[in-house]
Amino acid sequence: MSMVSLPLFLGRCTLSAFSERLMRIQYVSQELRQRLFNVLDGLEIVDPHTHINPHQPAANTLADILGYHYYTELAHSAGVPREYIEEPGLEPKEKVSRIVAGLGPLENTVQYSWLIEMLQTFFGFEGDTLTADNWEAVYDSSAKTMSQPDWSSEVLRRSKLRGVFLTNDFDDELAGFDPEVYVPCLRTDDLVFHLGRKEVRERLESSSGVAIKDVASLRSAIAARFEHFFNRGARACAISLPPDFEPMPVEAASAETALQGVLAAGTQADAPRLRECSQAVFWMLAELCAEYGLPFDLMIGVNRAVYPGGVFQGQDLYDSRVSLIQYRRLFNAFPQVTFPLSVLASVTNQELTSYSWIFPNVLTNGHWWYSNTPTFIEYDLSARLEAVPRTKQIGYYSDMYKLEFALPKFAMYKRILAKVLAERFVIDRGWSEERAVAFGTQVLRDNTETVFYSREGE
Amino acid sequence: MSMVSLPLFLGRCTLSAFSERLMRIQYVSQELRQRLFNVLDGLEIVDPHTHINPHQPAANTLADILGYHYYTELAHSAGVPREYIEEPGLEPKEKVSRIVAGLGPLENTVQYSWLIEMLQTFFGFEGDTLTADNWEAVYDSSAKTMSQPDWSSEVLRRSKLRGVFLTNDFDDELAGFDPEVYVPCLRTDDLVFHLGRKEVRERLESSSGVAIKDVASLRSAIAARFEHFFNRGARACAISLPPDFEPMPVEAASAETALQGVLAAGTQADAPRLRECSQAVFWMLAELCAEYGLPFDLMIGVNRAVYPGGVFQGQDLYDSRVSLIQYRRLFNAFPQVTFPLSVLASVTNQELTSYSWIFPNVLTNGHWWYSNTPTFIEYDLSARLEAVPRTKQIGYYSDMYKLEFALPKFAMYKRILAKVLAERFVIDRGWSEERAVAFGTQVLRDNTETVFYSREGE
Amino acid sequence: MSMVSLPLFLGRCTLSAFSERLMRIQYVSQELRQRLFNVLDGLEIVDPHTHINPHQPAANTLADILGYHYYTELAHSAGVPREYIEEPGLEPKEKVSRIVAGLGPLENTVQYSWLIEMLQTFFGFEGDTLTADNWEAVYDSSAKTMSQPDWSSEVLRRSKLRGVFLTNDFDDELAGFDPEVYVPCLRTDDLVFHLGRKEVRERLESSSGVAIKDVASLRSAIAARFEHFFNRGARACAISLPPDFEPMPVEAASAETALQGVLAAGTQADAPRLRECSQAVFWMLAELCAEYGLPFDLMIGVNRAVYPGGVFQGQDLYDSRVSLIQYRRLFNAFPQVTFPLSVLASVTNQELTSYSWIFPNVLTNGHWWYSNTPTFIEYDLSARLEAVPRTKQIGYYSDMYKLEFALPKFAMYKRILAKVLAERFVIDRGWSEERAVAFGTQVLRDNTETVFYSREGE
Repeated sequence: MSMVSLPLFLGRCTLSAFSERLMRIQYVSQELRQRLFNVLDGLEIVDPHTHINPHQPAANTLADILGYHYYTELAHSAGVPREYIEEPGLEPKEKVSRIVAGLGPLENTVQYSWLIEMLQTFFGFEGDTLTADNWEAVYDSSAKTMSQPDWSSEVLRRSKLRGVFLTNDFDDELAGFDPEVYVPCLRTDDLVFHLGRKEVRERLESSSGVAIKDVASLRSAIAARFEHFFNRGARACAISLPPDFEPMPVEAASAETALQGVLAAGTQADAPRLRECSQAVFWMLAELCAEYGLPFDLMIGVNRAVYPGGVFQGQDLYDSRVSLIQYRRLFNAFPQVTFPLSVLASVTNQELTSYSWIFPNVLTNGHWWYSNTPTFIEYDLSARLEAVPRTKQIGYYSDMYKLEFALPKFAMYKRILAKVLAERFVIDRGWSEERAVAFGTQVLRDNTETVFYSREGE
Repeated sequence: MSMVSLPLFLGRCTLSAFSERLMRIQYVSQELRQRLFNVLDGLEIVDPHTHINPHQPAANTLADILGYHYYTELAHSAGVPREYIEEPGLEPKEKVSRIVAGLGPLENTVQYSWLIEMLQTFFGFEGDTLTADNWEAVYDSSAKTMSQPDWSSEVLRRSKLRGVFLTNDFDDELAGFDPEVYVPCLRTDDLVFHLGRKEVRERLESSSGVAIKDVASLRSAIAARFEHFFNRGARACAISLPPDFEPMPVEAASAETALQGVLAAGTQADAPRLRECSQAVFWMLAELCAEYGLPFDLMIGVNRAVYPGGVFQGQDLYDSRVSLIQYRRLFNAFPQVTFPLSVLASVTNQELTSYSWIFPNVLTNGHWWYSNTPTFIEYDLSARLEAVPRTKQIGYYSDMYKLEFALPKFAMYKRILAKVLAERFVIDRGWSEERAVAFGTQVLRDNTETVFYSREGE
Repeated sequence: MSMVSLPLFLGRCTLSAFSERLMRIQYVSQELRQRLFNVLDGLEIVDPHTHINPHQPAANTLADILGYHYYTELAHSAGVPREYIEEPGLEPKEKVSRIVAGLGPLENTVQYSWLIEMLQTFFGFEGDTLTADNWEAVYDSSAKTMSQPDWSSEVLRRSKLRGVFLTNDFDDELAGFDPEVYVPCLRTDDLVFHLGRKEVRERLESSSGVAIKDVASLRSAIAARFEHFFNRGARACAISLPPDFEPMPVEAASAETALQGVLAAGTQADAPRLRECSQAVFWMLAELCAEYGLPFDLMIGVNRAVYPGGVFQGQDLYDSRVSLIQYRRLFNAFPQVTFPLSVLASVTNQELTSYSWIFPNVLTNGHWWYSNTPTFIEYDLSARLEAVPRTKQIGYYSDMYKLEFALPKFAMYKRILAKVLAERFVIDRGWSEERAVAFGTQVLRDNTETVFYSREGE
């Protein structure tokens, strides 16, 4: 048997003993992460938050893919004029050609990596970059693939998705699709923040059949929409909230005054009236979530239209100075409502972790938008995994607009989950791989089921 | 000699040269961390902040262990009703049985790992999880161990603790224990924030023998307590502070008005009166710390009773929007007072690092509460180790209520300290192991001595 | 061929297959980082922000080195009285002797590592610590080296710097140096924040030849300085800003009133007048940057003189509660101006990343001051590299006062850049080394050229 000369602190040993020691390093290595990833990647899951249109869930052409705001806004940020890529009436192919021309400066971004991984997985693309030289072939061949009659089912199958949550306007009919696959979710931003708009009130009146004259009728109208959503299989109510919003119950008389002010003056109502009206409607939604047993997804921290000159969906940013203490009244007042929380800024993640560790009705939910990049996910996820009960963490959602994006986005998350489980649980804390995999499975798959699929009678 | 075929960039080399290269990896590996940990783990240290009751320092049964708020609050957060585990008159064994039933969802948490490591170390437990099937045997055998007459000394010895700091109410007699082992520390939250409560004023009058009629007599009363604590071996004054507190000197007349308002109306006094009274008392404490040469531990950032429905000691949370700039007047006004600072939120850690790097009288102190989990410790510690003078960092305190917890909590810290020293100093900066160990020793052990044991005449 | 017994999950394999597997670990190892570093370290670059005095760019003695505020402030923080090291009239050698005596507690800091690496690189120092025993030899031999007539050129050459940006007062003559090597940069803090000081107004009047009577003449005076700077080769306008500053256009009449108030009452003018005056001047600067095609470096977040008792340049700290949303009006109003942004606190880095990802005119710029330490750089850099277009990231600047510091500071940055590229791009994302190196080169070198060297006509 060969003898290997080793550094002093290891002493001399046989090659076999040497390989034993090396095993430990090997164990620390990429292979452990890969093994954990492989198991997680085999799971069939539900995606608990997307913007999928169930009537057109998959892309028709690459224009639907490259039209995703991540590509247009990053290309615009790197110098492409908005008018050039958003010119009205552009043919899909021309649009793709223009966006591709602006992709070069984005090649480092993780968002770009989603695009490449998706093209490779679904459309047989073999390159690392999409350029002026190769995009057209990809465009044509992918269009062919996308035109298969069962393409969206095929994407779901290959992405191992058994369901995707939708983001439905409150007046959505929710008809014409399978709610077991495309799961309705009542999005309520318009009700809380845009009731001053005549068009919003008209949509509410028309969809509910209730004329809105006062708080009582407003409540009836909204309740009617809850009833509708509940009956069509909705599994959550959701809303995104600006950093300065503070949920608060509003006394009946004040709420009435506020609403009348908003009904009379619309978006031109006094700021305090508008704010109280928002708070009153928000509180109503929480009450209805309690009544219907629906989780209330709160997505906290976005400022809309900070950059009005930006591309479509590329204008929103944030003020990271927000605290969950603003939500203390809500969490205390509705112990029976489950609040899966997303925060926009990673600096709020410790609060999210702590509030989920203390409040039974607060859960961590995914990695949202500007925090949906590996460095922030890795740090935020690590903090959650070690301090929040394992039953209270909903690992990830894709937030996608087209089905093709779930696969690369979830793959990114699963690689990070495998990395954190490998480094912080198997290595640092001596867990077995089996235990790590079971934990990852719960966070990635099981909790979504437990949290959203436990409506009464089910 | 065997030849090993290596990738191109390494070139071909002999097995021995190959092993040389591998040495470098080995060095990077777990073994380095383990070696550093082993040295740090052998040190006898003082724990500079705990909530130990010196008359009952160790646990009597597992109920004292599982009654720690981390387990009750996390179990409650994961679904166990408060009333179930806090039912009055519960027998210890029944209480443990009920808490154990709710531990399953916590098995991932680092707090749970403290429990298991402690049971394994002190009570011969051999499992990885405490369950309905195995808890009773542990309960019985541990009760037997705990009932040994010298159990608390044994715990101290095996935990390598030569002293633990206490958290004493201002009216504590400080009698009946050895202050060299159980080191008195004057906790002052009541004086600063609850002087409006009649019961607090009565305790102060009765313990000091001074009737509180005005600022002068209030000061005499508090000074009497400092004298008492100093004479009984106190080594620090300490307080926890809400995020919106801003220390400020209050003019004599204003302070008098504020105090009179509080004496008259108690907790119902006007908010500005209450605030000025708090500020005046706080400033008085700083002056007395100067007078008695006591370090003033500031624990910054907690909001009390955010979740009033929570379990005992499981109701506090925070608003992470706090800045040390609020303390600039204090740090400037008392250059002769040492302020070991703890911050509740990791987002404040960079400020803590910077303020300690600039102000001679500001020190970093441990990793507090919601920041006492590995991901935050690792990040916060890394930032401190590389930018704060090594003499100004008090590494860790356990914050424990029962002696058994120091060992697993310090073990967690020492593993992270070893990891950071290995990765960021030995690997990244080329330090020798000896130098890394010396630095770790100073942070973990020596600074506690230097900072707290340098009272005049000692 | 020898057989190596491997753990079960690897199976048995030949030594050669074994080495193949080990290659992957090797690849993960230090060697990859080292290879990436070596390439980056070979690049000739421009340092886009320093405080170099072009008439005296390099040090004369170690006193110029150890007088850097990092050493005096850290030594002071660790216990050295300010008066001792700042005693007026100290001879350089005596000053060094006094500072060296206080360096012991700093040996852990990264700032200290800059010192040692610099002494080793430029002055043949062979130790790891500078102590009472060895400093004098270093002092003497370094003084000899520094006295070489071409020393500053030699430092530039060995540091691979082809240019360093200066920080010039608005009334700087900008004469007597080569602006291709020492690149002028118009620093504007005095104009925005200290126009109330008579001395500042006099300097402006005298350097511009314009009497300041109203907003129009103030603008003419400042415009004259832009013209001067532009003609002497200035490549940027720069300013540091306190956390509470919010740029805003000020209506003509209000601006006039504010300015008249400041002209009349100086620094004693009402706070709102002073603030509006600052805002009006700031807006003027942005307009002039647009006019002259100069990037406007914003360094956001510093509070001056928080610790008035501190050493020279060691008195400033910050309130990390700042948001880039305060700058939304500015970024929207000046799409034609490039804003390279530095933030003082790492908790603002995610906002910087997001704002750079959305706004075409916002760029990330270096790692400033209290965030210029490895842990923060590594985290902040990782977040930027994966989400900001690669054309919009200016990697690093030294902020140095003496040329000798560029080398160790850039070396620190390049090591971290190599680490992040190795771990997060080559390992985590499967990039080739070539691609990683190209990205690093762009961030470290190329973007500085693109951003600052594209003035009209060049």
